[in-house]
Amino acid sequence: MRALTFKDGLSYHDDYPVPVPSANEALIRVRCAGICNTDVEILKGYMGFSGIPGHEFAGIVEESPDQGLIGRRVVGEINIGCGVCPYCQSGLKNHCPNRSVLGILNKNGAFADYLTLPMSNLHIIPDSIPDEAAVFIEPLAAAFEIMEQAAIRPDDKVCVLGDGKLGLLIAQVLSLSRCEMIVVGRHRDKLSILEKRGIRTMPGPLPQEKIFDIVVDATGSSAGLETAVNIVRPRGKIIIKTTVAERGAVDLNRVVIDELTLIGSRCGPFPPAIKALETKSVDVTPLISKVFAIEEGIEAFQYTDRKGVLKVLLKIG
Amino acid sequence: MRALTFKDGLSYHDDYPVPVPSANEALIRVRCAGICNTDVEILKGYMGFSGIPGHEFAGIVEESPDQGLIGRRVVGEINIGCGVCPYCQSGLKNHCPNRSVLGILNKNGAFADYLTLPMSNLHIIPDSIPDEAAVFIEPLAAAFEIMEQAAIRPDDKVCVLGDGKLGLLIAQVLSLSRCEMIVVGRHRDKLSILEKRGIRTMPGPLPQEKIFDIVVDATGSSAGLETAVNIVRPRGKIIIKTTVAERGAVDLNRVVIDELTLIGSRCGPFPPAIKALETKSVDVTPLISKVFAIEEGIEAFQYTDRKGVLKVLLKIG
Repeated sequence: MRALTFKDGLSYHDDYPVPVPSANEALIRVRCAGICNTDVEILKGYMGFSGIPGHEFAGIVEESPDQGLIGRRVVGEINIGCGVCPYCQSGLKNHCPNRSVLGILNKNGAFADYLTLPMSNLHIIPDSIPDEAAVFIEPLAAAFEIMEQAAIRPDDKVCVLGDGKLGLLIAQVLSLSRCEMIVVGRHRDKLSILEKRGIRTMPGPLPQEKIFDIVVDATGSSAGLETAVNIVRPRGKIIIKTTVAERGAVDLNRVVIDELTLIGSRCGPFPPAIKALETKSVDVTPLISKVFAIEEGIEAFQYTDRKGVLKVLLKIG
Repeated sequence: MRALTFKDGLSYHDDYPVPVPSANEALIRVRCAGICNTDVEILKGYMGFSGIPGHEFAGIVEESPDQGLIGRRVVGEINIGCGVCPYCQSGLKNHCPNRSVLGILNKNGAFADYLTLPMSNLHIIPDSIPDEAAVFIEPLAAAFEIMEQAAIRPDDKVCVLGDGKLGLLIAQVLSLSRCEMIVVGRHRDKLSILEKRGIRTMPGPLPQEKIFDIVVDATGSSAGLETAVNIVRPRGKIIIKTTVAERGAVDLNRVVIDELTLIGSRCGPFPPAIKALETKSVDVTPLISKVFAIEEGIEAFQYTDRKGVLKVLLKIG
């Protein structure tokens, strides 16, 4: 099959072996996949991953022990738990210490004609969601994770820091709560996607006033958390989405004195993400910067790294 | 009146002017006061405070607009809000941006014959609590703050890091929830205070296994938070009580990946602290290392700094 692989560098193959599903897995033909910042980080050595990257996809089930799945269009949760540890037993497979992660940790991913995933990871996509939008379900679920972790009320003052792909998804998701929100970023063109949906934005830095009930750090930058600490109110919450190799100085004494709550946030629930796309309460179409064929995968990655680019998709099947 | 003052250094006076209460304040004759680590930090320059330090006390109301308070034995909350800001209006005077703090920020404190505090800051002490124990109500309230911030269940695995004064109070408070708790410290004599109350302790470092649902950093040391991150389970909570000038490296990516919640914790509610002493569900007596007269205040501070010393009290009235 066709596949992009990473080991030291990224390579394109047209004769990579089709993966063989294990007993509880389905074989999925990938139709479309998205390049995530994590993929870009993987190419820089993140997680020490080698193999086929890619974890945002939409595809068709070709083989499955559950016959009802065959021929269905699906997306897939990316964490594969061991199934027997206390985390897996209590439904927290995302935190299984023995987990593998599609295209990120010990499991070949979506930048190929085929992938395999446990049937329990799959979610059937309604016909009304095209493949190109369905690819966003995984990152959109990560945005919805915030709603699982913090109750957001219409009278909450919320600030989303960052106008990258995840920031734009988070802003749309949090706006569903009708909270008083502002999104701070550095790219007028990206912020304008939100402005068109009636979401308040602000280019450039905020005045350092402690006024926000909830601040989301989706900057992906080393300075994001420091900024968040400076603008959140006493007893307020900071949701941290950013993982970075080097973080700027954060005054953690402020966390104690102001009794702040810091909440780390990673993968999230698929069902609300699917529903939001189905009901068009979130629009991902303006986030697609360009679509490449899988054969152009190396070029697609180079394009992703360009300034101002949002989501780059690979059209595979 | 007699008073200890701090400016550059600590001085003892026997002719310091008695403070004049403002309209909503009571004049309180101090009977007993406790030296807190914060006082020791103030002598090193913390908060840039100058004046009379001391914020843990028990005393008798001598003057008060509310006649019913006169002659009553009281303790006092230390944060004095402006009364008009949104924090004060919503009962969060501890976080008033314009607050003064008894013996810590813009307000003379308890190491003197007299202090003044707003009547609304005062709590009457039941007769069954002696002055020496009542002095612990303020730090004990800070321990109870944890119970306000995190629900602790009997099946929660909890680790308290630190066997200083606050750690010993926190351990006793959290043990009331009947959770599965262990207290980790470096002083066998301090830990033995808890052992005698049936609380599990462990001297020295824990194995770095991610097994605790809740970890409290009461180490007062730069390495406490790093240790907490290494032993808390995914989706677990870390309560941070420690403020330090220099903190060790903390891997905040772990907070994101493991979706940890970090909660800063400072001052707390007085009523449960008073109740716990009244019902003897917490015992502070073994924490008293030595009692000095106020005239011996400078010596008392020197004694506080000695290795192995817990609470040092000043007997004033």
